[in-house]
Amino acid sequence: MPHVVIVGAGFGGLEAAKALASSQAEVIIIDCHNHHSFQPLLYQVATAALSAADIAWPIRAMFRKRRNVRVVLARVEAIDHKKKIVRTNSLSIHYDYLIVATGATHFYFGHEEWERFAPGLKSLEDAARIRDRILMAFEQAELAEDDSALKELMTFVIVGGGPTGVEMAGAIAEMAQHSLCSDFRRIDPAAARIILLEAGPRILPSFPERLSRYAMKALRHMGVEARVSARVTVCDARGVIAGKERINASTVIWAAGVTASPAADWLGAGRDKNGRVIVSPDLSLPGKANVFVIGDTASVIDSNTGAPVPGMAPGAKQMGRFAGKLIAAEINGRKTRPTFRYRNYGELAAIGRKAAIVKIGRLELTGFAGWLVWAVAHIYFLIGVRNRFVVAFNWLWSYLTYQRGARLITPEP
Amino acid sequence: MPHVVIVGAGFGGLEAAKALASSQAEVIIIDCHNHHSFQPLLYQVATAALSAADIAWPIRAMFRKRRNVRVVLARVEAIDHKKKIVRTNSLSIHYDYLIVATGATHFYFGHEEWERFAPGLKSLEDAARIRDRILMAFEQAELAEDDSALKELMTFVIVGGGPTGVEMAGAIAEMAQHSLCSDFRRIDPAAARIILLEAGPRILPSFPERLSRYAMKALRHMGVEARVSARVTVCDARGVIAGKERINASTVIWAAGVTASPAADWLGAGRDKNGRVIVSPDLSLPGKANVFVIGDTASVIDSNTGAPVPGMAPGAKQMGRFAGKLIAAEINGRKTRPTFRYRNYGELAAIGRKAAIVKIGRLELTGFAGWLVWAVAHIYFLIGVRNRFVVAFNWLWSYLTYQRGARLITPEP
Repeated sequence: MPHVVIVGAGFGGLEAAKALASSQAEVIIIDCHNHHSFQPLLYQVATAALSAADIAWPIRAMFRKRRNVRVVLARVEAIDHKKKIVRTNSLSIHYDYLIVATGATHFYFGHEEWERFAPGLKSLEDAARIRDRILMAFEQAELAEDDSALKELMTFVIVGGGPTGVEMAGAIAEMAQHSLCSDFRRIDPAAARIILLEAGPRILPSFPERLSRYAMKALRHMGVEARVSARVTVCDARGVIAGKERINASTVIWAAGVTASPAADWLGAGRDKNGRVIVSPDLSLPGKANVFVIGDTASVIDSNTGAPVPGMAPGAKQMGRFAGKLIAAEINGRKTRPTFRYRNYGELAAIGRKAAIVKIGRLELTGFAGWLVWAVAHIYFLIGVRNRFVVAFNWLWSYLTYQRGARLITPEP
Repeated sequence: MPHVVIVGAGFGGLEAAKALASSQAEVIIIDCHNHHSFQPLLYQVATAALSAADIAWPIRAMFRKRRNVRVVLARVEAIDHKKKIVRTNSLSIHYDYLIVATGATHFYFGHEEWERFAPGLKSLEDAARIRDRILMAFEQAELAEDDSALKELMTFVIVGGGPTGVEMAGAIAEMAQHSLCSDFRRIDPAAARIILLEAGPRILPSFPERLSRYAMKALRHMGVEARVSARVTVCDARGVIAGKERINASTVIWAAGVTASPAADWLGAGRDKNGRVIVSPDLSLPGKANVFVIGDTASVIDSNTGAPVPGMAPGAKQMGRFAGKLIAAEINGRKTRPTFRYRNYGELAAIGRKAAIVKIGRLELTGFAGWLVWAVAHIYFLIGVRNRFVVAFNWLWSYLTYQRGARLITPEP
């Protein structure tokens, strides 16, 4: 049986594996985590509304009944095209077909040293780290001796006005104003400043302008200082400089840029300015018909708009399914290769517990109607029936009580 | 208002604070965690059945409506009797009354170097560490190249046959035989060896002999190699030596001994052989009527049996309530001091998803009836209505599906 190795068990890798699960291939999924995490809800873990396990699922458990699927917990270190081998930190694995779906990571525009001060949100560990920082800031503020330290601790800066930045800002505002409001004696958590900085002329630039304006208004209504044309030029232990203004903040969260994982290096492949591997119309590597690159790791153009396919779950899933089916068909003897076409089903972003913006085809929703669509869509796409119940239950409970169920600070070892 | 400082928000400290919450005192709770954790269910977090947040609750949230209760997240470093000051890593806090309720920690009988190899289970971090080790052992076994490494990875040793040891052994056995059974391709998780080592002549020595025998049989029925009179004399990176036998095991869990927290040092007080502070009949420190020591930190004799009060939640809660009420009454003008009397309501231990042993007064239960009583009692005592629902839901779900919902490995930073 031909060996299909899939590197990465994000949305793209999982869909590829599913498409291959009933094929004549032996499928090997390599990931450096034992679980898939549902990235669209990471911000809820980072703001203590959900536990990590609520939005994660062991990869093995998903393929338990697919005997031709093997899962390997290992970190990829190199890919040897000639020998058709993926080298990991533990063993080397032979492939006939290879799908690289290693996603993206934070990008600091050449200032990688900012990461210490402004962590990004791409994994469950990131989420736990950000949650600890936010909760610790309030704890330290309660004990702060002088006013400037207090102000700094009570200031939260979110850099980047895309969906993650907007969702984080909204969730921190709600946490401060509702969940924590009666818990402290010296500070008033509701007095926390939450500042959202977007470098471009409007937040949520991928949405229609009307929805961006609505989101801006909704955020401001929640007490978030949302600013546009505010480019961060410095990021340090005391906060940020945006434009010419210094903002002292002990918590800064990076939601501004992503770059592809180092797959292009492993593959020795051409890349675009975001580090994404340039692929052929069938998602294979030019000149290497048995190697596919999908999801956030690939540079793919939406033929309808001429713009790059957005780095979100639906694109990754579509590419995964496409590559998996293509390989399965080829193993069965098909000789020609189709062209990948992205279908844009729409986009959603939550602004808080009462509002979201939704754009599906011509339908545009805001407010509570938007939130309902957002909530149903996210629960629907969560993997595993248990997680759906737990998330639905936690949301209902938070909604009724304004409480957050996962307010734990994990001390750093 | 007199200041009552409570150090430690375990079962004892919380009960003391509740007893004082409607008194004429200003209550300050100091803890180095932001949450209380429900220790009797730690083993379920350690075996991936529950998330940390399911059995933990932010201390502040519990006292949100008690304006005379303040919570300070800090680590106590010293206590100054003369100045009546508790020194922490951040600030110093004055007290008129002091309640020390800092609990117990693992004890390696003078071999503290064993802790690296055989972590104990006292906190949520311990639970996460043990969970990671257990899950990683199976992952590494799946990739193991030689037989002896495989055998070592698939061997789990639990040292200590008290309730925690028995519960851990049962839970690991179930995880291996049911939750993980179809997930691997090269190894058979059900072939894992789970070895419970008790140094004394029987497991669960605090229970009647009949129940110990039942538990032994139930464990063996589940495939656990439960051994008595098996004292561990060496603990290292490869496993343990018990009696004269070397047992190679990559996962060793310590459930054998506890010792009181360093409160006796802070207080300059007399202690018993387990490091617990010797207290007067009213739980105060001899010669220091305004300082109380309660729970696992105190050496208290049960006047009914002449034996020490067992280091479990009920004793700690009773002492906390006693000390809190005593201080509240004294603030109100009472001049005499009562004597603490322990009421033994019974004891429970779970052996798996189908059995537990229960001893309440003359009532002795085993099997599924015991498990039902165990489950209801634990849900009843869990703090917070949300956690009760989530735990009940997760148990029902695990019961129906044999799955475990929190199978995440957190990579060490």
